[in-house]
Amino acid sequence: MEVIYALFLFTLLSSSHASVNDFCVADTKASDSPTGYPCKPVSKITSDDFVFHGFVVGNTNSSNPVALTPASVTQFPALNGLGVSAARLDLAQGGTVPMHTHPGATELVIILEGEITAGFLTPTSAYSKTLKSGDLIVFPQGMLHFLVNSGKGKASAFLTFSSANPGAQLLDNLLFSNDLPSSLVAQTTFLDLEQVKKLKARFGGRG
Amino acid sequence: MEVIYALFLFTLLSSSHASVNDFCVADTKASDSPTGYPCKPVSKITSDDFVFHGFVVGNTNSSNPVALTPASVTQFPALNGLGVSAARLDLAQGGTVPMHTHPGATELVIILEGEITAGFLTPTSAYSKTLKSGDLIVFPQGMLHFLVNSGKGKASAFLTFSSANPGAQLLDNLLFSNDLPSSLVAQTTFLDLEQVKKLKARFGGRG
Amino acid sequence: MEVIYALFLFTLLSSSHASVNDFCVADTKASDSPTGYPCKPVSKITSDDFVFHGFVVGNTNSSNPVALTPASVTQFPALNGLGVSAARLDLAQGGTVPMHTHPGATELVIILEGEITAGFLTPTSAYSKTLKSGDLIVFPQGMLHFLVNSGKGKASAFLTFSSANPGAQLLDNLLFSNDLPSSLVAQTTFLDLEQVKKLKARFGGRG
Amino acid sequence: MEVIYALFLFTLLSSSHASVNDFCVADTKASDSPTGYPCKPVSKITSDDFVFHGFVVGNTNSSNPVALTPASVTQFPALNGLGVSAARLDLAQGGTVPMHTHPGATELVIILEGEITAGFLTPTSAYSKTLKSGDLIVFPQGMLHFLVNSGKGKASAFLTFSSANPGAQLLDNLLFSNDLPSSLVAQTTFLDLEQVKKLKARFGGRG
Amino acid sequence: MEVIYALFLFTLLSSSHASVNDFCVADTKASDSPTGYPCKPVSKITSDDFVFHGFVVGNTNSSNPVALTPASVTQFPALNGLGVSAARLDLAQGGTVPMHTHPGATELVIILEGEITAGFLTPTSAYSKTLKSGDLIVFPQGMLHFLVNSGKGKASAFLTFSSANPGAQLLDNLLFSNDLPSSLVAQTTFLDLEQVKKLKARFGGRG
Amino acid sequence: MEVIYALFLFTLLSSSHASVNDFCVADTKASDSPTGYPCKPVSKITSDDFVFHGFVVGNTNSSNPVALTPASVTQFPALNGLGVSAARLDLAQGGTVPMHTHPGATELVIILEGEITAGFLTPTSAYSKTLKSGDLIVFPQGMLHFLVNSGKGKASAFLTFSSANPGAQLLDNLLFSNDLPSSLVAQTTFLDLEQVKKLKARFGGRG
Repeated sequence: MEVIYALFLFTLLSSSHASVNDFCVADTKASDSPTGYPCKPVSKITSDDFVFHGFVVGNTNSSNPVALTPASVTQFPALNGLGVSAARLDLAQGGTVPMHTHPGATELVIILEGEITAGFLTPTSAYSKTLKSGDLIVFPQGMLHFLVNSGKGKASAFLTFSSANPGAQLLDNLLFSNDLPSSLVAQTTFLDLEQVKKLKARFGGRG
Repeated sequence: MEVIYALFLFTLLSSSHASVNDFCVADTKASDSPTGYPCKPVSKITSDDFVFHGFVVGNTNSSNPVALTPASVTQFPALNGLGVSAARLDLAQGGTVPMHTHPGATELVIILEGEITAGFLTPTSAYSKTLKSGDLIVFPQGMLHFLVNSGKGKASAFLTFSSANPGAQLLDNLLFSNDLPSSLVAQTTFLDLEQVKKLKARFGGRG
Repeated sequence: MEVIYALFLFTLLSSSHASVNDFCVADTKASDSPTGYPCKPVSKITSDDFVFHGFVVGNTNSSNPVALTPASVTQFPALNGLGVSAARLDLAQGGTVPMHTHPGATELVIILEGEITAGFLTPTSAYSKTLKSGDLIVFPQGMLHFLVNSGKGKASAFLTFSSANPGAQLLDNLLFSNDLPSSLVAQTTFLDLEQVKKLKARFGGRG
Repeated sequence: MEVIYALFLFTLLSSSHASVNDFCVADTKASDSPTGYPCKPVSKITSDDFVFHGFVVGNTNSSNPVALTPASVTQFPALNGLGVSAARLDLAQGGTVPMHTHPGATELVIILEGEITAGFLTPTSAYSKTLKSGDLIVFPQGMLHFLVNSGKGKASAFLTFSSANPGAQLLDNLLFSNDLPSSLVAQTTFLDLEQVKKLKARFGGRG
Repeated sequence: MEVIYALFLFTLLSSSHASVNDFCVADTKASDSPTGYPCKPVSKITSDDFVFHGFVVGNTNSSNPVALTPASVTQFPALNGLGVSAARLDLAQGGTVPMHTHPGATELVIILEGEITAGFLTPTSAYSKTLKSGDLIVFPQGMLHFLVNSGKGKASAFLTFSSANPGAQLLDNLLFSNDLPSSLVAQTTFLDLEQVKKLKARFGGRG
Repeated sequence: MEVIYALFLFTLLSSSHASVNDFCVADTKASDSPTGYPCKPVSKITSDDFVFHGFVVGNTNSSNPVALTPASVTQFPALNGLGVSAARLDLAQGGTVPMHTHPGATELVIILEGEITAGFLTPTSAYSKTLKSGDLIVFPQGMLHFLVNSGKGKASAFLTFSSANPGAQLLDNLLFSNDLPSSLVAQTTFLDLEQVKKLKARFGGRG
């Protein structure tokens, strides 16, 4: 009977053996596409491909109050096509993750330690809460959001995303790191021109 | 033969007749869902459901330099589930559509008249151009973007979206119309506190 | 503080910098896939990639009453993966866009000028209207539809699609440009054989 | 240990128990939506919900050379949300499934018996073959296609679809069952007016 | 200018105000659908809807070595339509999460504490590793997988999913909690009949 | 008029001609991606690409009671990106398709001949029926299911899938063909260690 079954399996698995779509570890040296990278050959994949190391406590010493360790498809190619990724966030006292969006991902935050005030903004409401260890908050896809260590001592969180490659559009970098004329930025944000120029200087923008 | 064919059709169309999924005109009085509204019964649908009137020239007289006429699923229920919508934009001289995002839609702009400077921002680049009648520009999903009438005289454009309900997250409303403490807004945007308070007063925010 | 923030950004943007999925301008020389083309490197992308010129008034002089100027991913590679495209349509008096379908796209039409009669067909109804400047009509995905300049003078419209590559299946080309035997076309359309042969001659078909 | 495990399962299954998304048998009396019907309560579902009877040989006696037995979500509510459906097709000698499209579904045909000539059309090619028992042919989503019993004796096939509700847009019904003016149909199809009127009479159209 | 801008915003936000699709907090008392629950009215939504409490350390005392605290759409309705969820897992020494699948979700595991051996199975390979605090492992959608506390002392992890409602198909419950005849289970698993009967008795199955 | 129309078509088809997305026959020698293979050039595609031969009666002679003939994207590259595939199953008397899942596909079974008992399992129910020729059964995506020839004489069925590449995760191969330690398999399945070792020997596993 074993032989019989083996024959059957041989036939059936001739399909399954080629089924790289059950997973598709990214060949990140090839060109990306709107839905991810081409797959590495299954024959070259080992258990190590599905594991990511290094969500250790980030360094938030006096010179850097915020540390973010991402595990998206760039760092963890096995996530390619699977629609998830994560990051570890460490905030020294007073540390701030400033306003930003992820254009293609919802973010689900799990507070590990400390007290974090976080929220997201809509044109009509700010949904914001002060969170403690074991609390979760969700920022729906594309929404402008922030996190602040509002407690005493350090704070940390795991960030998880509904995309293998969530990106990160930090508002200050968007507005003040580029070479758009300061007057145009002022006109389209209603900020005072002096404010724009001040932040352009700070964030490396020209114009 | 006609009778024969009619019999055949009767059988086949018993399926097709119930096929409201070829289109699904929204019953906007019912609850929305993550993928749109329930469908109106096919028996109640007429040609008028698939037509939207009113993309006339918007009123941009001296008291209002910007007019936007949306045709999304709210105004045009036939778009439900079809992944497209549109709007007409009219800008008096100097009129500005300030920085905003559409969290769930790419925007494709067709310039009708006048000169419009438009662009979108990434953390590393500002992609921006001055456009004339017949030019198109695309703002990928979730990106912060703006449009300004940079010419002499009025300007107008059609805006089309890859969603039946693109929303509109205007940056100033996000930041300055809510009741988040001004100090928290300042902390998470790097804006000066005075700037935040000034714009909160202007956009109706408290705190 | 600027230095501190810069350090933070460096870490965070190491992910964002590689995030070509916020947009993916097509490398149209590479092979297409079911979901679009591979991406051009971000380093080679400029503002010009996101702009398309040439939606000028089409030439519909006496020798050609219909002019269609497409801006799909082939002409405008930035649309790759973004789920939108557009075209400009110009019709001289009496000009006709004959029956056709877009198998993978809903079409939303914005009438610019003149009078256009347009509609789509289902097995049980024809949804059709005569439209004027500022009117919209939607043709749900895959539906057979048509547009006719039913007024006096020229007419024009913008066509927008829920796909970067909507294709165009013109009924007469489908039926009469190929080498399928005329008798088979007649059998499967209920058209008279003479009619089929006449149109095969006209549209370049053989058989 | 059983008790221990049972406790664990109780906790874990409190989620799974409510998980109607592993399947969602349609409540076809409720309103449809762009992505299908609401789910029947899991408590009311039995094995019978997942089984469909009646793919018996269709009646293709002298008065009806074509019989089609559909099993889409209307007849088989368990298919709701699962992206598949099927139909059985029986063709007497000379029986024809005339030109039609499925706007939202690819069709994969499995020939059971007899000889069937089948194909689909693009603007530049007709892809067509004569098929025998055990052959498959695929009609990509939205493509105009046909099937003809080109052999001696009866023929039959199973049709499977990439949608729970594929619809069926029969070309003759689209063009000739409605009340669009015959002259407009002629103008937009390049058919002779006499041909249009003849088929309108046959397929129940007015105008 | 404030008044002018407010007028503009009024027009624009008439669309945005109705845009419940930026998020769609589940009305879990309504019927589910293949893509989630209907939305609660925006007017009833507060900051509390976007926060979930209770990812505290699970109780894994001597009578229960495994504790799993889920935060899927059932417990956290704001996740509706957003494609993410999470759970906290606590394992006493020797605690085991037995073989199971999530038919509609990839799982990304973040090890918090202790040593966990985890892996998933394919027909040709077992991808398995022993993990420590700060390690991640991914189980692609639908794959059979397990986690075991292979260290000394307790272990814990956060589980995140690419679905708001991942379900949980525990292999032993699938095979041994039902009323399928033991002989049929044996025949379709190649397990010995005695083994099947033994586990049926343990997991509450009949037959 | 023919010339006029031809000019129009030339313009319009310059888009359609390049539209390889209406279908995308797989170039299976190129790398796969999460959404399928790159497309073969349209110029190299013929009618033969859309046809698959060989769903003949499988060989289930005395040495092999089960024969499965797959037609997924590997064997039938035209299915690439189209979301459907099929297989033919032949079972000699007593033949069994043991417990397995398809992680990314719903399966719709059409019974051709004989009597087949089939079903799928959830943590709380087994949905199972004995089926005859002309019956259909559906196994929702990712569910553990089986088929058994429960009648006298041979049985056969067509299997159709909601994916071009459904894979096949046979439970015995998952559990017993790998090199995971037998003790770990026993611990995570609650099977007796002797049972695990016995089946590891049979299915080629080590450890």
